[in-house]
Amino acid sequence: MDMSHEAKRPTIAILFYDGLTSLDFIAPHQAWCMFADVFLVSKNGDPITTDSGIVMHATHSFETCPQDLDVFFVPGGMSTFEVMLDPETTAFVRSRGEKAKYVTSVCSGAVILGASGLLDGYRATTHWATYDMLKLTGDIEVVSDRVVVDRNRMTGGGVTAGLDFGLVVLSQLLGEQVGKNAQLILEYNPAPPYNTGHPSVADEETLKQVDAFLHGFNAHGMNQALEVQKRRALAA
Amino acid sequence: MDMSHEAKRPTIAILFYDGLTSLDFIAPHQAWCMFADVFLVSKNGDPITTDSGIVMHATHSFETCPQDLDVFFVPGGMSTFEVMLDPETTAFVRSRGEKAKYVTSVCSGAVILGASGLLDGYRATTHWATYDMLKLTGDIEVVSDRVVVDRNRMTGGGVTAGLDFGLVVLSQLLGEQVGKNAQLILEYNPAPPYNTGHPSVADEETLKQVDAFLHGFNAHGMNQALEVQKRRALAA
Repeated sequence: MDMSHEAKRPTIAILFYDGLTSLDFIAPHQAWCMFADVFLVSKNGDPITTDSGIVMHATHSFETCPQDLDVFFVPGGMSTFEVMLDPETTAFVRSRGEKAKYVTSVCSGAVILGASGLLDGYRATTHWATYDMLKLTGDIEVVSDRVVVDRNRMTGGGVTAGLDFGLVVLSQLLGEQVGKNAQLILEYNPAPPYNTGHPSVADEETLKQVDAFLHGFNAHGMNQALEVQKRRALAA
Repeated sequence: MDMSHEAKRPTIAILFYDGLTSLDFIAPHQAWCMFADVFLVSKNGDPITTDSGIVMHATHSFETCPQDLDVFFVPGGMSTFEVMLDPETTAFVRSRGEKAKYVTSVCSGAVILGASGLLDGYRATTHWATYDMLKLTGDIEVVSDRVVVDRNRMTGGGVTAGLDFGLVVLSQLLGEQVGKNAQLILEYNPAPPYNTGHPSVADEETLKQVDAFLHGFNAHGMNQALEVQKRRALAA
């Protein structure tokens, strides 16, 4: 579907890696692909397996990814605390992020931007369970919000925030009317069955059960984020 | 991620076909995969290309798909008006749907269920642009709603309705608390940038632009739906 009226469609590159969360990138991808050229960029151009177990093909490798992008985007996932410590990945993220018109993330993708030094001096958000880890990855003002726009950095909250984020990015690129059109095409008129979508609104029992579920993941994430902090201090 | 406390995880099969809309199935898949075994079932077990151009691998073929499922699910897509006229696909949909505990769809996936005869005598919904086509595919009471539950049929509206739908299905399968937990993990606390997510709320300019964009798609869909109606009348 091509709904772009632009002579030149914007270019968007998505960092594609094993263990990313499918919905983190599919939500904005679905809105963007009607109006922009979107690249799925894995390290060697190989297929990846998402954290929900789906095998998906990349379209580019780090080497073949265009240099000058309108948007560079990093989704989150269960493996972000590993990926943020991979020097080859953070070097690539820096190389494209420094030149991109917009540097963006959804969910824990922000910790990869942080570890790459791209959020120093910016306000940003991430999945609610990873606020503390994001703070350790750089000089970042971490805020709790659905979508945070600070100059050319645009970051979204956890997983489903990618929908709101995707429409905000689209509007920044091509104007408000294009964002409105995409929202109608995607029938984005939400009716969540519960009011538990963030710790600020969830009931005690739900918070307790989810905290217990995420305990090991969070403990591991804090250790890894401390390692990022240490390495960045040594490199400075 | 396995958050199931059940001895036996529910089984869910997703109809996987070229031209399906990625977000239609990824939204519920992301919620389900933490608690259930989810199969991606393409005709011959081959990879498919979504309508946003992403190549994804199937896990099963029509032949290897388990016979007895808790949920049989059909997502929508830009190709549904072709798929609903493929006898091999509708025979498969009928074979699994007749035995499944729940028969479900998101977006224009409902027209495939309709053409397979699985919505006769039921209330159901679909993407707002395809209400008229769904009516032609069977004896169906088509309603405009986010998620419609009529006995063991559960249908969602367009694209992003898959999020609300996915949590409703999860709650039916495993109880309300599991749905609440999934909503918090996925940070589903929506903040859409506009109020254009359905024709009942969108402004005139947005409606006009999107109607023009969908004109050809809808005209083709009506022709195909009339063909379904004709074939079903002949077969009766």
